[in-house]
Amino acid sequence: MLKIRVIVVDRTRSPFLKQGESFYLDRLRRYARLEWVEVKPAKIRKGGTADKVLALEGTSISKRLLPRDYIIALDRAGKSYDSEGFAGRIQKLSITQGRLTFVVGGPLGLSTELLNGANEILSLSRFTLTHEMSRLLFLEQLYRAFTIINNEKYHK
Amino acid sequence: MLKIRVIVVDRTRSPFLKQGESFYLDRLRRYARLEWVEVKPAKIRKGGTADKVLALEGTSISKRLLPRDYIIALDRAGKSYDSEGFAGRIQKLSITQGRLTFVVGGPLGLSTELLNGANEILSLSRFTLTHEMSRLLFLEQLYRAFTIINNEKYHK
Repeated sequence: MLKIRVIVVDRTRSPFLKQGESFYLDRLRRYARLEWVEVKPAKIRKGGTADKVLALEGTSISKRLLPRDYIIALDRAGKSYDSEGFAGRIQKLSITQGRLTFVVGGPLGLSTELLNGANEILSLSRFTLTHEMSRLLFLEQLYRAFTIINNEKYHK
Repeated sequence: MLKIRVIVVDRTRSPFLKQGESFYLDRLRRYARLEWVEVKPAKIRKGGTADKVLALEGTSISKRLLPRDYIIALDRAGKSYDSEGFAGRIQKLSITQGRLTFVVGGPLGLSTELLNGANEILSLSRFTLTHEMSRLLFLEQLYRAFTIINNEKYHK
C-alpha cells in the first residue's frame, strides 16, 4: 500500500473544512497509508517579514521530512492537471516511489527554498484559495485520483 | 446593491459542504442582494440518457430565468480566471448589469442548449469537482471577489 504523508502548516480552524478534511482522510485510508502532519505556524512578530515567517515554517517542515522523500509541494504557480491527468501522475509515482510527501503551506504559502527543493510543484487552481480550502480541494482530488486509478464509481 | 441569483440543481446533501455554503452566503449578503434558487434534479429513469436528464433540468432552470437575465453558466470547459481577474470581471459586470444570474448544474453538469444560451461560461477548475464542491468553491471565490473589489482584507 502506497504511503502518503501530508505535511500542513497549522491546524484547520474552520469547522466545516475540518469536517470535510476528516471525511476525505477516512476515505483515503482505503487506498493509502496516510499520515497527516501539522507543523506549528510561525508567529508574525513586530517588524517581521513574510519571508521570515516562510523561512521559519520552512525549517519546521524540513524537520519532518525524511531522507529520500519524494516531495510534492503545493503552489498556485505549479503544474496543473485535470483529474484524469492527476490520477495518472499519482499512479505512475506509486510505482516508482514507496512514499509520497505532499507539503501544503500556511496563509503565506511556502518558502522559495522549500519550493526549489521539492521534486514537483502542484497547482490546484488558478484562483487564490485559503490554505484551509486548498487542503479540502487537495484531499478531494487525491481521493478522486484513487477512485479513477481503481476504476471505481464516484459521483460527479 | 448588485442583485445576484444563483440557480443550482438539487439541494446540497453533504453536511459540511452545506455548512460551508451557508457560511459564504451569509458573508456575501454584505455585498449583494443574493438569491439562492434550487431546482429539482431530474430522475434518471430506466432507459433514460444523460442528455434527457440534462434537457429536463435545463427546462426547470429556464423556467426560473427572468427576461434579459445576464447568465453566467459554470462549466469546466469555460473561461478560467485568477481571483483578481474574476473580481475585475464581476466589478465590470456590476456596472453594466443590474443583476447577474449564475447557473450551476447537477452531477451531470448543464445541457449544451443551456450553455449555448448563456452570456458567459465560467470554469472554476481544470479538475472535475462534485457539483456540491463546485458550489462551495464558487461562493468562496465570489466572496473573495467582493473583498478584492472593496479592497478589504481576507486571509489567504
